Amino acid sequence: MLYYLFDYLEKRFDLLGAGVFQYISFRAGMAAFVSLLIALVFGKKIITFIQNKQIGETIRDLGLEGQMQKKGTPTMGGLMIILCIIVPTLLFAKLTNVYIVLLLIATIGFGFIGFMDDYIKVFKKNKEGLQGKFKIVGQVTLGLIVGITLLYNSSVVIREYTLPDGSVSTAQSSAVYKDTQSNLTTIPFVKNNELDYGSITCFISDSCTPILYVLVVVLVVTAVSNGANITDGIDGLAAGTSAIIALTLCIFAYVSGNAIFASYLNIMYIPNSGELVIFGAALMGACIGFLWYNSFPAQIFMGDTGSLTLGGLIAVMALAVRKELLLPLLCGIFLIENLSVMMQVSYFKYTKKKYGEGRRIFKMSPLHHHYQKSGFHESKIVTRFWIVGILLAILSLATLKLR
Amino acid sequence: MLYYLFDYLEKRFDLLGAGVFQYISFRAGMAAFVSLLIALVFGKKIITFIQNKQIGETIRDLGLEGQMQKKGTPTMGGLMIILCIIVPTLLFAKLTNVYIVLLLIATIGFGFIGFMDDYIKVFKKNKEGLQGKFKIVGQVTLGLIVGITLLYNSSVVIREYTLPDGSVSTAQSSAVYKDTQSNLTTIPFVKNNELDYGSITCFISDSCTPILYVLVVVLVVTAVSNGANITDGIDGLAAGTSAIIALTLCIFAYVSGNAIFASYLNIMYIPNSGELVIFGAALMGACIGFLWYNSFPAQIFMGDTGSLTLGGLIAVMALAVRKELLLPLLCGIFLIENLSVMMQVSYFKYTKKKYGEGRRIFKMSPLHHHYQKSGFHESKIVTRFWIVGILLAILSLATLKLR
Repeated sequence: MLYYLFDYLEKRFDLLGAGVFQYISFRAGMAAFVSLLIALVFGKKIITFIQNKQIGETIRDLGLEGQMQKKGTPTMGGLMIILCIIVPTLLFAKLTNVYIVLLLIATIGFGFIGFMDDYIKVFKKNKEGLQGKFKIVGQVTLGLIVGITLLYNSSVVIREYTLPDGSVSTAQSSAVYKDTQSNLTTIPFVKNNELDYGSITCFISDSCTPILYVLVVVLVVTAVSNGANITDGIDGLAAGTSAIIALTLCIFAYVSGNAIFASYLNIMYIPNSGELVIFGAALMGACIGFLWYNSFPAQIFMGDTGSLTLGGLIAVMALAVRKELLLPLLCGIFLIENLSVMMQVSYFKYTKKKYGEGRRIFKMSPLHHHYQKSGFHESKIVTRFWIVGILLAILSLATLKLR
Repeated sequence: MLYYLFDYLEKRFDLLGAGVFQYISFRAGMAAFVSLLIALVFGKKIITFIQNKQIGETIRDLGLEGQMQKKGTPTMGGLMIILCIIVPTLLFAKLTNVYIVLLLIATIGFGFIGFMDDYIKVFKKNKEGLQGKFKIVGQVTLGLIVGITLLYNSSVVIREYTLPDGSVSTAQSSAVYKDTQSNLTTIPFVKNNELDYGSITCFISDSCTPILYVLVVVLVVTAVSNGANITDGIDGLAAGTSAIIALTLCIFAYVSGNAIFASYLNIMYIPNSGELVIFGAALMGACIGFLWYNSFPAQIFMGDTGSLTLGGLIAVMALAVRKELLLPLLCGIFLIENLSVMMQVSYFKYTKKKYGEGRRIFKMSPLHHHYQKSGFHESKIVTRFWIVGILLAILSLATLKLR
């Protein structure tokens, strides 16, 4: 909202002169800053408020040293994260931008699913939380909203510049451009190549393309939000990992949404997607601000309110900048954590059937608990997972130039 | 060195086609990646090697809980950091670039001073380490080398574009440009303004300008390297803080060294300074890689070999991109730690003189020990200091657009 206020003031009175509010970089910096500030200034009050409302989530006894000390730590810290995302976005982003509207809807949607889950766990004393089917219905519904918006909204386009000789290029080498509602996405590591979802379904019928795309969206959204949910097991792990991913997505959004940079890097130019940098900066700030309290030893947990929201928003941002095929690499931590659970469960079932007794691959799953059981300090595991996350982010960014 | 090899191969055989080795972003990504990889792959061997050579630095007994457990942890981990900086730089940077040569000299120089200090502490069992005067002489000598190079090397220039109407602009709006060996630096927060060190000394004599500049360089280099040295007190603090600062300096170097971005952001265009991104990426990678072992609970300490080197390199990088006046903000953690010691000591002396007994402002200095004595977990203090470091980095980057 401040965007419109300052935009008016700058135009009317030449107030700030340079018109800094026109610049995405400046507004993104402010969004991250304000997000952090809210967490740091109001965090303690929010934690006390949540703590007073609940006695603390009943912790599953994993037989891990020091774990019982955590009894009484309040959960639903995701509410703080959501606040730190929404306020700066409302202040600094263009609220008429389709991507911003979509991400705000996603924030509230995922936040609501997660909140219901936490609410049932804490107040109904039902450890299972929200029934699996309701969770899936919620995630699929949000996936449908996102998929259909990205498919049919007239502002969701990629811009291609037509060269004088008639050939098409994403580079800004001529003044003639064409906006298309396309099904293109980026294939990582492959040079000069984009995948058109249409080309996969073309041998059946063109009308299948939207269905395929929406299916991909639903799959991506569900997978990443569940991945973040599973990763959220030890202090600071999910928040820190998400902050690293959010920063990387900001960079992708910045270069995809700027005609000059997109042309320089020879990547898809997606008009209006630059506003996503402001949302991403708020998301990063929220994660880092939350980490102030959530780092070892944690004073609050994010709960499903936080982890489902973070995962969902990361998925939607990646879809909006058409980098969803990069997610297995960028969100590698989520993927590995998810796979460790699947492998553990399948192997246990398989060996139980074959040998009569279930065997395990990891001492415990998800993976971070395996390391905990192996004697590593919680704090050490978290820092090392962050470092792997940074490594994956660097590799993801390197694909900008490998294409 | 790989730069020259691949540059040749690309030109000769069109091997990699796109000529990715021409791109700073790609080489920087590789430098960070290789730096991290060296630490992760060889780290354990390096630690074992160092541990075998020494019994571990004698730790000053601070009466802090758990501190005595740290006895026996090897120090001089800075050697690992230096290795992780030098190897990727040699591989991926242009070795004929003046800034790269300067930073490699600084790495070896600061590394040597720090190593001597550690060597005397560990092997001569002299807790004081290298005598203060030798340390200062070393730092000042390196400061002089850096200052004089930046002043008189013919490749150290800023490029200004002359507009058709004869006025001078740093923006690339015309084909006519002029390279100058200038004394300009950036004043943060002030719009469209650069400080010419010459304007400070002009009322005395123009010949004083180089002396003033060299004095500033020596001061900056000494202050930042000592700041990092004092900050290095608890597990992962100096390494993590330095990684955040290195990333920020990479962004400054990237935009300062690219004519298009510099013009877009309306900042000084400093030809050749783009190569610093590769060095900065290696520096960041080295800090993060070291953190793998240095995070709580630490398996190795960086020692003065590490902290003096990190501080010194940060100072030299900031000077090279002419952002030294931003250092009190960007390196705010180092500054606060340094100030806390000064305040503590001065107040103690003052009250001792006045009241007969010395009083303290902090429970203990440097500041991180104050929080430790206040009952915060080491790991929590470190994460929070990192978060403040990120906040300061965001504010520093925001000056790019506030000018």
